[in-house]
Amino acid sequence: MKTIPVLLLGCGGVGQQLLHHVVNCRSLHSKQGLVLRVIGVADSRSLLVVDDATTMEMDDAFLMAICRAKSSGSPLSSLLDIGQCQLFKDFNATIKVIAVAGLLGRSTGLAVVDCSASSETIDTLKQVSGLGCCVVLANKKPLTCGIEDFDKLTLHYRGIRFESTVGAGLPVIASVTRLLMSGDPILHIIGSLSGTLGYVMSELEDGKPFSQVVQAAKYLGYTEPDPRDDLSGMDVARKALILARLLGWRIDMDDIKVESLYPEELGHGSMSTEDFLGSGLSQLDKNIEERVKAASLKGNVLRYVCVIEDHRCQVGLQELPKNSPLGRLRGSDNVVEIYSRCYKSSPLVIQGAGAGNDTTAAGVLADIIDLQDLFNCRNSS
Amino acid sequence: MKTIPVLLLGCGGVGQQLLHHVVNCRSLHSKQGLVLRVIGVADSRSLLVVDDATTMEMDDAFLMAICRAKSSGSPLSSLLDIGQCQLFKDFNATIKVIAVAGLLGRSTGLAVVDCSASSETIDTLKQVSGLGCCVVLANKKPLTCGIEDFDKLTLHYRGIRFESTVGAGLPVIASVTRLLMSGDPILHIIGSLSGTLGYVMSELEDGKPFSQVVQAAKYLGYTEPDPRDDLSGMDVARKALILARLLGWRIDMDDIKVESLYPEELGHGSMSTEDFLGSGLSQLDKNIEERVKAASLKGNVLRYVCVIEDHRCQVGLQELPKNSPLGRLRGSDNVVEIYSRCYKSSPLVIQGAGAGNDTTAAGVLADIIDLQDLFNCRNSS
Repeated sequence: MKTIPVLLLGCGGVGQQLLHHVVNCRSLHSKQGLVLRVIGVADSRSLLVVDDATTMEMDDAFLMAICRAKSSGSPLSSLLDIGQCQLFKDFNATIKVIAVAGLLGRSTGLAVVDCSASSETIDTLKQVSGLGCCVVLANKKPLTCGIEDFDKLTLHYRGIRFESTVGAGLPVIASVTRLLMSGDPILHIIGSLSGTLGYVMSELEDGKPFSQVVQAAKYLGYTEPDPRDDLSGMDVARKALILARLLGWRIDMDDIKVESLYPEELGHGSMSTEDFLGSGLSQLDKNIEERVKAASLKGNVLRYVCVIEDHRCQVGLQELPKNSPLGRLRGSDNVVEIYSRCYKSSPLVIQGAGAGNDTTAAGVLADIIDLQDLFNCRNSS
Repeated sequence: MKTIPVLLLGCGGVGQQLLHHVVNCRSLHSKQGLVLRVIGVADSRSLLVVDDATTMEMDDAFLMAICRAKSSGSPLSSLLDIGQCQLFKDFNATIKVIAVAGLLGRSTGLAVVDCSASSETIDTLKQVSGLGCCVVLANKKPLTCGIEDFDKLTLHYRGIRFESTVGAGLPVIASVTRLLMSGDPILHIIGSLSGTLGYVMSELEDGKPFSQVVQAAKYLGYTEPDPRDDLSGMDVARKALILARLLGWRIDMDDIKVESLYPEELGHGSMSTEDFLGSGLSQLDKNIEERVKAASLKGNVLRYVCVIEDHRCQVGLQELPKNSPLGRLRGSDNVVEIYSRCYKSSPLVIQGAGAGNDTTAAGVLADIIDLQDLFNCRNSS
């Protein structure tokens, strides 16, 4: 049996789902000769970690108790009395993560898994990476900060995986990496990488007003609590930046041209979420309707896409042929078209659900398992 | 720098292209801290191997000379005088491969790469695998023989890769493996896995006779020299068997229901290639035309697909909605739809060129590179 020690940062929806997957996959992984040993779990305020990180682990009952506590809004500290764990808060939590990474990193390996949505994990991740730990990210922020941070995190490129940052569990990063490794130069990537905006744009084809479609998307749970966080395009831009940097482009967020679907006067600084949904959103209907109609007259549809090509990385609305993989897209599926020497006349296309805690956490787990050859910790059993 | 020693079995089109890729990727791989060291190349009759497999390698000029010789029909023995190599023939070639595997396998790792189309490599592959070597396959035969051989080859599942056996360089195996690793059970796979039959079936939609479409496909170089080797469906069945076994199904070729597109009386035993193309093929036109028309009346198209579902693995013609990923397929692209817990209502779809030496060899190279964490041989440089 080979053991993969895991320390989880962030136990919101994706983190909790990951712990569920780890527990549910015990017998599957055991058949593959693998054991995942969760030694610590952190949220934004504190870290719960086993007393002895070299030998102990959080058992399945305890992992499920963490999920129950976090999903009901209780702090990690409420769990202190049921396990052989220690609690560290704030700065001490960070110190302890580094200490554990120093203890396990080079000797047996440790996967530090970031399922948070915070940019505050970056320093910790850089340090644990320098201490020989592997890093797995669902969190896009550490890869979309300054290029120096990106370089440092990806210096040991075999020890970092981040499939779930783009298209959730869809094998987009893995496919791009395979092409790059085989010396097949990627010429052009175009993709619809937001399930929310994919849904919105495809619903507009039926002639529904933009405001109504966005309200419906919010009702269906497809949007962030404030839909402007989707409509700004910033989340898609982060994914585009990750892909562009994966291609070796040394660019920052500022280098990406991002089209927001609402103007500044309807922004967070000018009105509340309620006001935006109540009165702001409908002000956008006319303009979007005209653009949809103009596209339709040419046999095209509007899609919110990222385009990475010729040192140009941009994110926004684009007219595309109705009868193309992107034009045919309906619902909340993501789709990515990759053009390279091998996939020149017709692209390599990857399509499927690109959001959801289950799918995202499954992608994270696949990344962890895929790192196994870098771990040298074996059980005696 | 980390060194990956490589021994290549089979230097037809894919093998030659692999050697080209290795040479062309030198500086790319060097930036990733990698060196591929080709220590031997074998064809069906002989093995050329460096004098000292622990330290020497075939240099790029020599690798290109091998490609030139093989593509012009010269034997490997014609190259003996230009490199510091030894030549081994027939049984002695096999003995030497095993000896080299024993020398390098456990100590530093050796990637034995099978780009042949032969079933005669199986015993060698099983032996080198047992000696600690990694195995990379473009050759489907070793994975489609008896289940005991498959079990033995995949026993050390991290040390064998075979992406290019299904869909050439398309990341089909990698995607299925990722889903399986993350405990996302695969419910159903349906795919068009033959570029030849994909082309033929999509051309039939325009009302062209089957015989004319097959002749055109042969003219375009899409078919095997005898198109019956495509029309029999056996190549698709081999790919289906590999996918089914990857899902853990313990089945053999005999368990797959394969629909041949020609009857036994037009088979290899009854008529020559010339007779089949001259008079046999057109006998099939009427039946196929009727099936295409019947499908069309229901808004469907005919596709030659593999279906893996509910312990049923079959390969043959199926009516599919015109407006589905498989129904929309044109030209020689492959497409695979994977349904799992995470991709239930809408599948994970992978589409793109699924044939060609360039693409196939690129997939093989990506597999070799992806094995790097299992190698422990470092250059002093």
